[in-house]
Amino acid sequence: MTSTDPQPGTGRPSYGERLAAVTGRRGRLCVGIDPHPGLLTAWGLADDPSGLEVFARGVVSAVGDLVAVFKPQSALFERFGSAGISVLERVLADVADAGALSVLDAKRGDIGSTMAGYARAYLEDGGPLAADALTVNPYLGLEALEPAFTAAVASGRGLYVLARTSNPDSDQLQLATRDGRTVAQTVVDEVQARNDASSDGLRTTSRQAQDAGVGSGATGPFGVVVGGTHGQAELDLSAFTGSVLVPGVGAQGATVADLAERFSVPRLLLPTSSRGVLAAGPDAPALRQAVTALVAETAVLG
Amino acid sequence: MTSTDPQPGTGRPSYGERLAAVTGRRGRLCVGIDPHPGLLTAWGLADDPSGLEVFARGVVSAVGDLVAVFKPQSALFERFGSAGISVLERVLADVADAGALSVLDAKRGDIGSTMAGYARAYLEDGGPLAADALTVNPYLGLEALEPAFTAAVASGRGLYVLARTSNPDSDQLQLATRDGRTVAQTVVDEVQARNDASSDGLRTTSRQAQDAGVGSGATGPFGVVVGGTHGQAELDLSAFTGSVLVPGVGAQGATVADLAERFSVPRLLLPTSSRGVLAAGPDAPALRQAVTALVAETAVLG
Repeated sequence: MTSTDPQPGTGRPSYGERLAAVTGRRGRLCVGIDPHPGLLTAWGLADDPSGLEVFARGVVSAVGDLVAVFKPQSALFERFGSAGISVLERVLADVADAGALSVLDAKRGDIGSTMAGYARAYLEDGGPLAADALTVNPYLGLEALEPAFTAAVASGRGLYVLARTSNPDSDQLQLATRDGRTVAQTVVDEVQARNDASSDGLRTTSRQAQDAGVGSGATGPFGVVVGGTHGQAELDLSAFTGSVLVPGVGAQGATVADLAERFSVPRLLLPTSSRGVLAAGPDAPALRQAVTALVAETAVLG
Repeated sequence: MTSTDPQPGTGRPSYGERLAAVTGRRGRLCVGIDPHPGLLTAWGLADDPSGLEVFARGVVSAVGDLVAVFKPQSALFERFGSAGISVLERVLADVADAGALSVLDAKRGDIGSTMAGYARAYLEDGGPLAADALTVNPYLGLEALEPAFTAAVASGRGLYVLARTSNPDSDQLQLATRDGRTVAQTVVDEVQARNDASSDGLRTTSRQAQDAGVGSGATGPFGVVVGGTHGQAELDLSAFTGSVLVPGVGAQGATVADLAERFSVPRLLLPTSSRGVLAAGPDAPALRQAVTALVAETAVLG
């Protein structure tokens, strides 16, 4: 099991600790809240802000007590402008009220004081859109994201940095190399360096814990996003201690068992299912059944 | 939602044509609307949604008739959640009312139907946040951005794809190579391929225009973002026909004259100044004077 040490200085548990606690109780499943037009229609809802609200809050209402992590997709709220963002604010509050964690999938990335603006929007206490973790994009470099790393660790929040995606043309940029290392591997290594730094001052770092054989070690606050079709063959995650957000389980083919085989660190995986769960709605018992079945599958991840 | 009609079928001028027209009248300056906390304070405003509104709409009110293009920075509106996005909606409407073009600096990037959600938010008629152009992030690959390319060209809008930024650690990803080409150059080349495709069916493509010696050719709808410290030495823009958005002119050191020397295609540059202009406020005559001086400098770009 993981350390329960509080984050140094804050007295609040780190994101890794909070993630370990809730997945320990509820299983290791992340449910994507993706209000696509087609899903709203399938649920008998209008493709407008009121339909969006019924859909997104309905998901949390139906399965909020069963799910460890929810991942709202910001794009599908943004398409309704401020009215959609207002719904997103309420959904994030609902997730917290349900005792689950929220990973806002917004893939933000910028530099300096602009990146600090994103951090303030999504990673600081009291913000209307504060989530437990945020997905970010490393195209401008890992140092450019520093305001987000700093804000996250200061308030017990997390980040998931895009590393390797499963769309067909992702190789072009993500497998480009510099100094013999792919871009995707550089992202993993740079994120891990920040996990190591964030654990300074804790009684036991995850590496020390591993070296000492005292269990699987603490989960770092900073994770990566890796497509389910990619595994250890092309990306070395063996030294990684953050969690690994894997989108598209279920509907897009990969099963949780596939992932457990494909990745060298199955205990860190956070498999995410969106349509695979949401297509069972709007009937709440059917949604609960779909979630329960997927949560049971995640037991293999340990 | 996205029409597959090519630009020639819409009867609306392309983004490149609209950009050429407005910069022909007003000069080639883009003013960044960056409501940083420090700027709001310097203007004597509260760092809250009402201060944000006075600041951002005040900039457009003061210089909207002088400026060809405004670039609101989404992050600095997002930090106030839906209340900030509501202000952004009004700012985008103000920019259109002033006869200027808007480039929303949001650096979005995702895949498939999620990217289509962003396109619907920012690049389609009738959307509350529809801008004349949007900045996007290519980390997931250029094909992943296809819904945005399609939506933009269908409605006479544009995109600026991040290529090469001037922050110190940007080399790590942007100068990684694959098949002998840097990531940044691949972005430029892939964006240009889409400019070429978008001009199919038009009476005269830009290349044909250049070959025929009939002037400098049409401006493609798809541009790139390139930091002002980078020039032709490391990035080949000689075949590029989109516009090149160059942030940070003025406050961060580079002058328009520097850029004209540094880039091989000065006629395509769109120099952007944010703090260099905004620091002159809130006094409207002082803002107008700062803008007028910078616009005069852009005459060197032709």
